[in-house]
Amino acid sequence: MSVLIVGSIALDDVKTPVEERFDLLGGSASYASVAAGYFSPVNLVAIVGEDFPASHWNFLQERGINLEGVQRAEGKTFRWSGEYMWDMNTRETRSVALNVFETFAPKLPDHFKSSDFVLLANIAPDLQLQVLDQMDKPKFVIADTMDLWINIAQPALLDLLKRVDMLILNDSEARELTKETSLIKAGKKIQSLGPRIVAVKKGEHGCLLFGENDDFFSCPAYPLEDIHDPTGAGDTFAGGLTGYLANRGNHDVGFKALKTAVVVGSVLASYNVEAFSLERMRSVEQKDILSRFAEFQDLAHFDADLL
Amino acid sequence: MSVLIVGSIALDDVKTPVEERFDLLGGSASYASVAAGYFSPVNLVAIVGEDFPASHWNFLQERGINLEGVQRAEGKTFRWSGEYMWDMNTRETRSVALNVFETFAPKLPDHFKSSDFVLLANIAPDLQLQVLDQMDKPKFVIADTMDLWINIAQPALLDLLKRVDMLILNDSEARELTKETSLIKAGKKIQSLGPRIVAVKKGEHGCLLFGENDDFFSCPAYPLEDIHDPTGAGDTFAGGLTGYLANRGNHDVGFKALKTAVVVGSVLASYNVEAFSLERMRSVEQKDILSRFAEFQDLAHFDADLL
Repeated sequence: MSVLIVGSIALDDVKTPVEERFDLLGGSASYASVAAGYFSPVNLVAIVGEDFPASHWNFLQERGINLEGVQRAEGKTFRWSGEYMWDMNTRETRSVALNVFETFAPKLPDHFKSSDFVLLANIAPDLQLQVLDQMDKPKFVIADTMDLWINIAQPALLDLLKRVDMLILNDSEARELTKETSLIKAGKKIQSLGPRIVAVKKGEHGCLLFGENDDFFSCPAYPLEDIHDPTGAGDTFAGGLTGYLANRGNHDVGFKALKTAVVVGSVLASYNVEAFSLERMRSVEQKDILSRFAEFQDLAHFDADLL
Repeated sequence: MSVLIVGSIALDDVKTPVEERFDLLGGSASYASVAAGYFSPVNLVAIVGEDFPASHWNFLQERGINLEGVQRAEGKTFRWSGEYMWDMNTRETRSVALNVFETFAPKLPDHFKSSDFVLLANIAPDLQLQVLDQMDKPKFVIADTMDLWINIAQPALLDLLKRVDMLILNDSEARELTKETSLIKAGKKIQSLGPRIVAVKKGEHGCLLFGENDDFFSCPAYPLEDIHDPTGAGDTFAGGLTGYLANRGNHDVGFKALKTAVVVGSVLASYNVEAFSLERMRSVEQKDILSRFAEFQDLAHFDADLL
């Protein structure tokens, strides 16, 4: 079953303590689509400018992503530039140029409108809402967001929350949105704002998943010693998770499947940070995902039989 | 099989945003002994002053802890006073009075010296070393420590590390000791300093366990919404873990048992923070520990069968 993804496509300049790279393929939708594509056909809705390199376009196309819904507009592609500090945990945005995003109005090709699984990757919540307005009757809608929208577009974000099944956000964003220090309280409070399911990402500490009827899952992070570029980890997580769920198609999206989906998303994110941009995904195959999934089980499971 | 525990016994004044309590039973050895006592007989080595209340003494005795090695010295009991901030995560030490601890020299009763399992709970590393010097040939030695000793007694701490099987410390201490930001790198670096096994506690994010041959386990935290007093959580964790291992006796201390031990310690710590001092432990029974252990399994486990 195909998944509809809307989000940003960007050209990124990324500086780490070790290396600096320019004009990388970036943006929430790029990462999410490639990750989802491991499990499901992807219909992408986004916008690029006249300067968007053919090599990036071709890369997405070769991954089997349907680019019919990607507008090519006059002007320049959205650009982001950031620098990671020595610990690779804190980053500073050096510059953002919205460019073609300033006037972007997502428009869904007709045959995209009936998608059952929708990932509203990180973009402004009013754009995410515009996508939902064009959909027929999606079965499962996942939204990702960021601190910027909590700060400057909270009313639209709160409208959005009433219309999604699942929200993904990171720990500091969950605290900011709810004014709760305890992530447990924060997760539950976000559920009361609309989404039945909430995933709170904690970076090196993994992810907390809140389900219905107090279902709860704590997913560890994969123990990576060397992170080359954390950019897009969250988008990759969201994409992998959604692609896995869409692949299950008409099966119920129960908590057991959601747990598996969170681990799949974490596996994909753990690969993606091993190289700049989406470069690591050129060599990661589905069998690699299955093998790291098994490692995740090893590092998270324990037995009661010795008690 | 009995476990030998050395550490501090204290009288604590604790202030939280909600309540303030005085003259509470505290100290690393008090928490650790009560926790270990759920699984093994405990031989305690510590010191108290003339002012140590009979009610606290009786409480420890009623838990079946052997107090033969607890010196009653002239002067006052070690005192600690601390305040937890609104988020219950950060705390400020308001005052410390070493009192009888200033001249404390641990002395093991003869029949304590043959203990196979030893927990050197958090006290100065030179005192921890003095205990090891008096032991015959322990099978498994676990040491806990804190930032203070990393800062003011690092040479003694490094000596100690060469003589223990396992070190327990928290994330910021692991980073401070190794100057590594990545907890994965930090854990491995500490192993290279001596201990075959390292447990890095991460508070609300659970605990990382590093074993031999790159064995690795990520233990989640129990999702507590209301923490009443975090004091002693780490000591309770260490005690529960050691008591469980000692209870297994002459079985090998393999990684599977260590994983179980970490979960047992986490369960005990999660109970202990639900009330001030050791009050919660008055009502927690072994069956409660088993039931929360099962909850830990639920919240950490996931299946590959849906992949």
